[in-house]
Amino acid sequence: MPDTQVRIRDGERIDDLQRNGYRLIQNPKMFCFGMDAVLLGCFARALPDEDVLDLCTGNGVIPVLMRARGKGRNYRAMEINPDSADLAERNFRLNGMQGCARVVCGDICRASEVFGRDAFPVVTVNPPYMKGGHGLLNPDAAKAAARHEIFCTIDDVAREASRCLKVKGRLYMVHRPARLPEVFEALTENGLEPKRMRLVYPKAGQDANMVLLEAVKGGGRQMTVEPPLIIYGPDGRYTQEVKDAY
Amino acid sequence: MPDTQVRIRDGERIDDLQRNGYRLIQNPKMFCFGMDAVLLGCFARALPDEDVLDLCTGNGVIPVLMRARGKGRNYRAMEINPDSADLAERNFRLNGMQGCARVVCGDICRASEVFGRDAFPVVTVNPPYMKGGHGLLNPDAAKAAARHEIFCTIDDVAREASRCLKVKGRLYMVHRPARLPEVFEALTENGLEPKRMRLVYPKAGQDANMVLLEAVKGGGRQMTVEPPLIIYGPDGRYTQEVKDAY
Repeated sequence: MPDTQVRIRDGERIDDLQRNGYRLIQNPKMFCFGMDAVLLGCFARALPDEDVLDLCTGNGVIPVLMRARGKGRNYRAMEINPDSADLAERNFRLNGMQGCARVVCGDICRASEVFGRDAFPVVTVNPPYMKGGHGLLNPDAAKAAARHEIFCTIDDVAREASRCLKVKGRLYMVHRPARLPEVFEALTENGLEPKRMRLVYPKAGQDANMVLLEAVKGGGRQMTVEPPLIIYGPDGRYTQEVKDAY
Repeated sequence: MPDTQVRIRDGERIDDLQRNGYRLIQNPKMFCFGMDAVLLGCFARALPDEDVLDLCTGNGVIPVLMRARGKGRNYRAMEINPDSADLAERNFRLNGMQGCARVVCGDICRASEVFGRDAFPVVTVNPPYMKGGHGLLNPDAAKAAARHEIFCTIDDVAREASRCLKVKGRLYMVHRPARLPEVFEALTENGLEPKRMRLVYPKAGQDANMVLLEAVKGGGRQMTVEPPLIIYGPDGRYTQEVKDAY
């Protein structure tokens, strides 16, 4: 039962996720969810009896999207920024998930200490894409940390995800194609074998700008590259597949 | 000037490459060139004054295709199977390349001994895709060696390519998406950084079955994933881009 008593703070707004009535409080001054979160929520797989750990959860959009799609049972989430963690907790309540979802405010480099080792069949993560020193650092702390590897690198993410996963458990991640060799390296060095990949292209004829990955802890060395996912059609509108994802 | 005195042996046929009159002798009992070679010849870049080394050259199709597209100046090629190497040498003569192309019959694990270190700005390779022990071994020796990692593994290919390349030199390779994590690993462990990638899909909506890669010796850590390449259109015919490649 959604909690209608969830407090909305100054500067926040409620967005409709357009799926089964699920909604999300966002603060435009912080990191708002985008296409990457929607596509990751769509790409990730979790059976109705599988528990899901979401690292770098931000405002909690991934667990909410998973829930809206009937993926997973209980959700645990971790976020280093206290304001974002507070937002995630309220988003879980707003969507009636107070019984099954909980967020811990803390450093994901300590995720396996907090949640235990070999504990989850599924981990999801939408990590910061950019190297600490690269690009313009966003002056706002929450946005900067969500975008840049300030508090955690791709190696930290892979290491902690691997520790928290059961053997044969699955990690679902979205990242930038530009860093694919580093991402593969971090995964395999931490015992996570890439098994399924999908490249996302803004338009036909353009370079990919996102990559969706499934990696299996202790998986064998064979992967599948699924059909390309194109965001905008020739008419400048979302393709049917993206409309279906929303 | 094409050499019209090139001997055609029993069981061989001449195929027209449909580009500037270039032709290729093939033996259907050995490994015939396919879509992968055509797409690699298209994907690979070489300036008119750059020398090219082609490893695992088979019947020499890659240097002939590069030449037909005005890519490269002199070509060196290596092939372990004596019958294939003989075919490559005749293909170079058939296409008037006797002055600029030469094939060495030998083990590519010795390529840097034969051709020297830091010698080439460009290396191309269409290596065996399958693990030595995997799949049915083809009873014919030349076909088996062309398809399976019998004489050389992806690590051998990456190591020798890296040794033969100058610093900032480029390796162009076609491989199977299923082995992408291994390919990335072999490349980066040998100082070759993946910089440009293109996935090839038989049809829209199907999984990728080929990957084209450019890696740079001593390159920085940023890569581009170019638009997907689709082989067959909805009408079951080659897409325009594939027609252009032929």
